[in-house]
Amino acid sequence: MYVSLDRAAPVPLYLQLKDHLRRKIEEGILPPATRLPPTRELAAELGVNRITVVNAYAELEAEGLVTGQVGRGTFVSLPASLADQAGKSHPPADRYGWQTAFLVAGKVSANLMMRDMLSLANQPGIISFAMGSPAADLLPAQDFRQALNVVLRREGTRALQYDLPEGCGELRTALSAYLAKQAVPAAEDEIMITSGSQQAIHLVTEALLRPGDTVITESPTYLGAIDAFQAHGIHIAGIPVDGEGLQFPLLERLIRQHRPRMIYTIPTFHNPTGVTLSVERRHALIDLARKHDLLILEDATCNELRYEGRALPTLRSLDKDGHVVYAGSFSKTFLPGLRVGYLVASGHIFRRLLSAKQTDDLHTSPLLQLALAHYMANGQLAQHIQRMCAVYRERRDVMLEAMARFLPARTRWTIPHGGLCLWVTLDPPVPTTHLYLKAIEHGVAFALGSVFYPAGQSGSHFRLNFSAHSPETVREGVRRLGKTLKSMA
Amino acid sequence: MYVSLDRAAPVPLYLQLKDHLRRKIEEGILPPATRLPPTRELAAELGVNRITVVNAYAELEAEGLVTGQVGRGTFVSLPASLADQAGKSHPPADRYGWQTAFLVAGKVSANLMMRDMLSLANQPGIISFAMGSPAADLLPAQDFRQALNVVLRREGTRALQYDLPEGCGELRTALSAYLAKQAVPAAEDEIMITSGSQQAIHLVTEALLRPGDTVITESPTYLGAIDAFQAHGIHIAGIPVDGEGLQFPLLERLIRQHRPRMIYTIPTFHNPTGVTLSVERRHALIDLARKHDLLILEDATCNELRYEGRALPTLRSLDKDGHVVYAGSFSKTFLPGLRVGYLVASGHIFRRLLSAKQTDDLHTSPLLQLALAHYMANGQLAQHIQRMCAVYRERRDVMLEAMARFLPARTRWTIPHGGLCLWVTLDPPVPTTHLYLKAIEHGVAFALGSVFYPAGQSGSHFRLNFSAHSPETVREGVRRLGKTLKSMA
Repeated sequence: MYVSLDRAAPVPLYLQLKDHLRRKIEEGILPPATRLPPTRELAAELGVNRITVVNAYAELEAEGLVTGQVGRGTFVSLPASLADQAGKSHPPADRYGWQTAFLVAGKVSANLMMRDMLSLANQPGIISFAMGSPAADLLPAQDFRQALNVVLRREGTRALQYDLPEGCGELRTALSAYLAKQAVPAAEDEIMITSGSQQAIHLVTEALLRPGDTVITESPTYLGAIDAFQAHGIHIAGIPVDGEGLQFPLLERLIRQHRPRMIYTIPTFHNPTGVTLSVERRHALIDLARKHDLLILEDATCNELRYEGRALPTLRSLDKDGHVVYAGSFSKTFLPGLRVGYLVASGHIFRRLLSAKQTDDLHTSPLLQLALAHYMANGQLAQHIQRMCAVYRERRDVMLEAMARFLPARTRWTIPHGGLCLWVTLDPPVPTTHLYLKAIEHGVAFALGSVFYPAGQSGSHFRLNFSAHSPETVREGVRRLGKTLKSMA
Repeated sequence: MYVSLDRAAPVPLYLQLKDHLRRKIEEGILPPATRLPPTRELAAELGVNRITVVNAYAELEAEGLVTGQVGRGTFVSLPASLADQAGKSHPPADRYGWQTAFLVAGKVSANLMMRDMLSLANQPGIISFAMGSPAADLLPAQDFRQALNVVLRREGTRALQYDLPEGCGELRTALSAYLAKQAVPAAEDEIMITSGSQQAIHLVTEALLRPGDTVITESPTYLGAIDAFQAHGIHIAGIPVDGEGLQFPLLERLIRQHRPRMIYTIPTFHNPTGVTLSVERRHALIDLARKHDLLILEDATCNELRYEGRALPTLRSLDKDGHVVYAGSFSKTFLPGLRVGYLVASGHIFRRLLSAKQTDDLHTSPLLQLALAHYMANGQLAQHIQRMCAVYRERRDVMLEAMARFLPARTRWTIPHGGLCLWVTLDPPVPTTHLYLKAIEHGVAFALGSVFYPAGQSGSHFRLNFSAHSPETVREGVRRLGKTLKSMA
């Protein structure tokens, strides 16, 4: 419920709703041209009669605050002062205004934030550092097109038929070899193809956890994992991270306190902070898992994107007891829109996950799997990743330079040795939801730090992606960000 | 647990396990060349120490019943009498032997049955009527390849990027028009793209039901729905079907008794029986849903595949209150391996499903969605379906003729007006799990009737698919089935 209505109050509900919406419009939280939700939807959302919403909208219209457009919906009117500027460089608010409103209303939802980030990524005139996307200008689309054509000619209809839930043998074989090169032990029959690593997290949650269980995560951590755990009624106990990853000995204390069933961790190029768990802590984590019989979900989404230093042993490689489920993805190293990821697990854990995969969506498209296997077997994926690492290293460095130049002197940030994002801390603290809206006005977007905290802490943080845009665009985006921060000082 | 071990018995566990496996081998339930499960996996499955399994296997090996192959596993030995025939027309048992063993052990699992069906479909020498697949020889692979190429050239990298969870606008627009032609009310923003209709069922279960809830289904019903409901701890109350679909007034009695939250139904070309719910019962069902405030999940997977008669109104089109979630698929009308389906829902129900979709796997591949949208917008899908209806009608008729000719006189079957399957009832009853194994020996496979019953009733039924194979193959498969039945008489 995003609007608090008081059924006991003498003011009718429709007027309460109208007042609430008017405030939001006057405060700019619902900016001009924002489309209000359809009356039927809002009524359902608020648990009120539809006529209540219709009346509230009619009142707003009578006051000139909104206008109805036949067949399109109800929109926040342009104030006279702004009407002149309409259609200029301002982003069309229609697509994300209403969600952003939810953010400001204090109900920061991971789910809505993800929508917002997706929408912003496609807004003309906005440089978005919000999504954790690979380089948009260098996606190997034509190479993949060739791989698709080869597979459809060679395999014929097999690529378009039903298949087994664990995935295609070709891709599992290719992945087993690919992971062996990274010293990740993964026999072909321990690998399951998923619809992105998001599905791997979902499957682990669904198949191995029960509502009421507790999971320990880094705090902050990946948005989609928070979403998956919370949607299944899992409690999250967050542990702060420092420069070497999640903090010991706080971890052991939390384990005793919460008796969690699982630790979800992103040990390498942690999302959102970019830090990497030290070797010593990796060993200690495995020891703790053994001691307390905990499952570990190791999110290795960005492992291959290392720009300096040596690879550290994965938790999966240190594990001797089958405590670790390893989740990987092609979304960061190759193409996000394939929705192909994988998990590595052993024994009965693997079988439970497999059963959940079959229940959820039978299997992932064999066409995409086989094309990917072809691309990998050719050695093209390894080459592509090598190329991208050089590109991303440069973009990271450009962002670091631009931040030093354009951001206020006391601003701090992490310097990740890999991955796609870094983490910024403002000093003195600034209310970041307000900053978020201001930044969009200045034509730049970031991921709001607060959404990465399982307990929804606020705090003066945000995440910047450095990989998606060209160096020039990265520099320009950081410049706009600096300008936004100065405008708020 | 598939093996019953008695921890209190004086016989050591490893010998109990050995005896159990020896019996299965001697009875042919674990046929020659079957790979036994890895020791670690079986130990985990049975909750015993791994050494117990290792010892049991060693005992079997000492008796010459199994042989170990380094790096490959432990296999049931070929008896001297059979060793000569090895490698001939017999299907390699390796891929499905162990699962089939589970079936015979009396633990018929929907999940394992689906694996079995998939494996059988690819066994050389077996004509499988088990899967509900479209015509394998007529899949429009090349047309789809063209669509993929057009999309990748025209859209560039957009098809390969992250997208919104509800799916691509192009496909939702195309679907809205496509459904309008079938008189299914579905505005673009009421349509969500899913990874097959299996995911639609899963999302409804996950987002709108709670463990302990009851769902009413036809009995028998779709295997994957049973699986999804049971995996989420949903109780299933089954209602028998007659020639007009699910039986009234039993339905109302069950509603009063179980206070279900939802009715899951396949009103048109019901899976597995092929019957269609009459118009009167459709109206009555909607009235009941309104009266008892029940959700209806209308599985419309085969709706477009009608070979005679007029289309009946969908439940979605009769619904005035948003009680119906409508689930459709391209797996039967187009390509199973795309894993693209959709659901239609309204208001807050839509939003809850959308939120679950995002949590589960972010979104379905935009590349596949856009190619499909291109194919639909060209009118190719409608043409393809029209062509296929003529083909399937012929194949159905060929199967009906062959059954009349080859099956025992008192065997009965349904005559569906559409869809891909029909339902056979044996008279006198025959133990169908035994028949299932015998049929595979004779080079033909079907879907075991018992797996479609939510409560796991046995009964002398099985499902035959008539669409996947050419008329000649359909005839030959039914001939083999007749031979199998005679061999058991």
